[in-house]
Amino acid sequence: MTGPASHTADPDLLDEDLERVLDRAGAAAPILAEASIEDRAVALVAIADALDVHRAELVAAARAETGLPGARLAGELTRTCVQLRMFAQEVRAGAFLDVVVDRADPQFVLGPRPELRRYQIPVGPVLVFAASNFPFAFSVAGADTAAALAAGCAVILKAHPGHPRTSELTATVVREALASVDVPDGAFALITGVRSGTRALQDPRVAAAAFTGSVAGGRALFDIAAARPNPIPFYGELGSINPVVITRGALDERLDEIATGFVGSFTLGTGQFCTKPGLLLVPAGSAVVDRIAELTAQVAETRMLTSKITQGYRARLDTVSGVAGVEVLVTGTGAETQDGDTDTVPTVSPSLLLAPIAQLDETSTLLEESFGPAAVIAEYHSDDDVEKVLTHIQGTLTVTLHVAARPSADEVEQVRAWGRLAATRAGRVVFNGWPTGVAVTPAQHHGGPYPATTAIAHTSVGTAAIRRFLRPVVYQDAPDEVLPPAVQDANPLRVPRVINEAGESGTWGHHPG
Amino acid sequence: MTGPASHTADPDLLDEDLERVLDRAGAAAPILAEASIEDRAVALVAIADALDVHRAELVAAARAETGLPGARLAGELTRTCVQLRMFAQEVRAGAFLDVVVDRADPQFVLGPRPELRRYQIPVGPVLVFAASNFPFAFSVAGADTAAALAAGCAVILKAHPGHPRTSELTATVVREALASVDVPDGAFALITGVRSGTRALQDPRVAAAAFTGSVAGGRALFDIAAARPNPIPFYGELGSINPVVITRGALDERLDEIATGFVGSFTLGTGQFCTKPGLLLVPAGSAVVDRIAELTAQVAETRMLTSKITQGYRARLDTVSGVAGVEVLVTGTGAETQDGDTDTVPTVSPSLLLAPIAQLDETSTLLEESFGPAAVIAEYHSDDDVEKVLTHIQGTLTVTLHVAARPSADEVEQVRAWGRLAATRAGRVVFNGWPTGVAVTPAQHHGGPYPATTAIAHTSVGTAAIRRFLRPVVYQDAPDEVLPPAVQDANPLRVPRVINEAGESGTWGHHPG
Repeated sequence: MTGPASHTADPDLLDEDLERVLDRAGAAAPILAEASIEDRAVALVAIADALDVHRAELVAAARAETGLPGARLAGELTRTCVQLRMFAQEVRAGAFLDVVVDRADPQFVLGPRPELRRYQIPVGPVLVFAASNFPFAFSVAGADTAAALAAGCAVILKAHPGHPRTSELTATVVREALASVDVPDGAFALITGVRSGTRALQDPRVAAAAFTGSVAGGRALFDIAAARPNPIPFYGELGSINPVVITRGALDERLDEIATGFVGSFTLGTGQFCTKPGLLLVPAGSAVVDRIAELTAQVAETRMLTSKITQGYRARLDTVSGVAGVEVLVTGTGAETQDGDTDTVPTVSPSLLLAPIAQLDETSTLLEESFGPAAVIAEYHSDDDVEKVLTHIQGTLTVTLHVAARPSADEVEQVRAWGRLAATRAGRVVFNGWPTGVAVTPAQHHGGPYPATTAIAHTSVGTAAIRRFLRPVVYQDAPDEVLPPAVQDANPLRVPRVINEAGESGTWGHHPG
Repeated sequence: MTGPASHTADPDLLDEDLERVLDRAGAAAPILAEASIEDRAVALVAIADALDVHRAELVAAARAETGLPGARLAGELTRTCVQLRMFAQEVRAGAFLDVVVDRADPQFVLGPRPELRRYQIPVGPVLVFAASNFPFAFSVAGADTAAALAAGCAVILKAHPGHPRTSELTATVVREALASVDVPDGAFALITGVRSGTRALQDPRVAAAAFTGSVAGGRALFDIAAARPNPIPFYGELGSINPVVITRGALDERLDEIATGFVGSFTLGTGQFCTKPGLLLVPAGSAVVDRIAELTAQVAETRMLTSKITQGYRARLDTVSGVAGVEVLVTGTGAETQDGDTDTVPTVSPSLLLAPIAQLDETSTLLEESFGPAAVIAEYHSDDDVEKVLTHIQGTLTVTLHVAARPSADEVEQVRAWGRLAATRAGRVVFNGWPTGVAVTPAQHHGGPYPATTAIAHTSVGTAAIRRFLRPVVYQDAPDEVLPPAVQDANPLRVPRVINEAGESGTWGHHPG
């Protein structure tokens, strides 16, 4: 069974059209930077409200283009609107401005200190590369767009060719919403085409870029951003193995629940989530492997996002199955290699593989991401086995640990150590849950060491994502009347601020001799 | 007149010695990450105290190697100690951990929200490339080392060949101080040699790098960091033009004070500061140009840091003087091109040049940094002239504006606009002062767009510099007993934290339709 034809056309803009987009974004940048934070919040809410108004039309378009279920898409659109409203609240609260004031201090230990007033300003126009797997939440009006607009940046959105009509519809909604609240025209533009995207990334008017996608694609763009005469930040979220470790104590308590949860998580969305758990470590000799295989074999075929992604998935399955010692426990249907090119998107059922744990060394391809509904299980024989794998994995968005609800003292100690080790490799350490389903909240961190992301200190989910598009500037001894409102002495915006009074350096110059 | 021979030898480590350094740093990383923040603070203070104890010896060594005045070096060593103690206080306060807790929320608008506990952990071993121009404050125990140790990272310090004995002495003091408070051996190591530095930068055990120096050197290292299989953050502080704009109102009030201040600032430390003002814009026809030339001609010769820096300065002066329309107002002595190589470091007196403002377009070499005691003056004929130059300059650490103490309404409006424009190009906007002399304080931002730095969101001076060496990790639904102390529910470290309670998402899902 195959789905409807995928849309792989990704036409480049005419040079003069791309130039117009870049020029307008550059012209809008200072206007957006000067706009009040209330105006920014109003713009974000206007987009959310407009998306809600066009909900039926948007979901129908995405359904036709991606084959994702209507309920999933409706939920994703809600998430998209929630993200926008959450950023509006974040902007209004003003803590993101990170205002710090050092009062002038004539007695400062290193000599008279001037008055310094620091806050965060927008970096300038942001180029966002939309993702294939979230046609709303990480696409045209998605998390990156919301964060960049919240920061006060213009957005140039490179649409993903997997859902062009959905992209165009969403862009129209965004443009009209922004126009309705008098945001300048250049604040948002949609572009298409690989060459257009690359040229925009090289353009001096673009100040930062965000990307969600494959390691190969993301790395190529990262390299372009780094090779510019003036390199710019490139916030890429690339590939992630998302390992899961189950303790014996956890299996003793809830084997079936864990098996069900794991299969549900790695096959969710046809395995096309950044946080799909691709590797499961279980104690050797447990019945959980058979149970997982049994449940995996029962999962129905679902459609993949695009024919290109399916081709990549097929090639990847061949590679993984071909690793010495790897046993295929469940052979998924629909993922067989096909002769010749095809423009249709197949449906597939999940594949499950069993690998000897000794194979999971740091050079193993088994520790690379398989984008699609496949997972590798490995049985561990000792705590040391687990520690080795956690040491060998590359950077990952998540590591998940399943432990007993009432763990023994030994298990607590072991899990604490694994948790610390996991934190050196991952941005998020999940206990007794599944990595898919990333809460959109202030404390969230959707990031991690390369190749999980190209910028280890940043998240692309949650309100902290705004930090990617801000940079500090400090005003020294400025007359109050020329200061931006955020740092004026009377605090007209009523934003939180840290004020360091004179006289605090008293002990720093202490000389013990 | 020439100073003592410079030390240009920069011997590479033996491969096995470099391997040992990297291995020990890698082994120390988890121990440092687990150490309490009180232990980190104690270690920082121990280094500061030990530097104070060895003060006479250190200053004497630096004086012999750099030719910098003893009083300047003593002050710089005090600054170095103050930085360390300031970071100790910052670490103890705990705000840098950025702890955010989202309580579990079964009623969260997008479905039940797990409990999330985020804080900042050290990135891992940091490679610091020491600067030539601050043999204490940006060298072995300088700002980058202090920030990295404060963050909980091991430091591998690539010494600058301009002051090898000072570096070795300082490193011994640091090692002994750390050993005295039981910090593991691998927490700090000094290396030398261009090849050793490059190899360390490519090593998988190194997680981030910091650099202060030239555009050419910094860019080469940035490119290496970006080309790694797993790219790492490279915090380079490179070149900066630091323009100064004087309004007519300011000159009417205090012409002589401004002339004196400018000459003092651009010749300070023989012009070898990152924040040296290299470009001055003054209203056309003012007597200030003659006054500045007169004062510049009176400045005595002082020694440059190394013969290599002097060679670069000479070549740069030739380039700038050769630009069409550029007039040399003061020809500095001692900076003439010499035949053949010389290992002696000359003393030089400052040079002053006058350039037509129309020459200052975005491709002009006049807008690049000259490292040494040279400055370019340009006369502006309109506010528009100033705006054009501020638009054309590359990223810079600072822009300085001198305005009247009691400005007219027109001047306020003009200066406000220039300030906003300056903020798009600079990390710090200074009013009625001079950019040299960077206060080491919490609100400081010593950074800016490329080429001022390679990482626009970060500072290398002030306590915010610690952020470069931290990254977030979030624990989801973790049993309290396996959590790190920083995020345990009882808050045993008593650090500031933001707690987001359940029920806050009430309005975000609002549907207007």
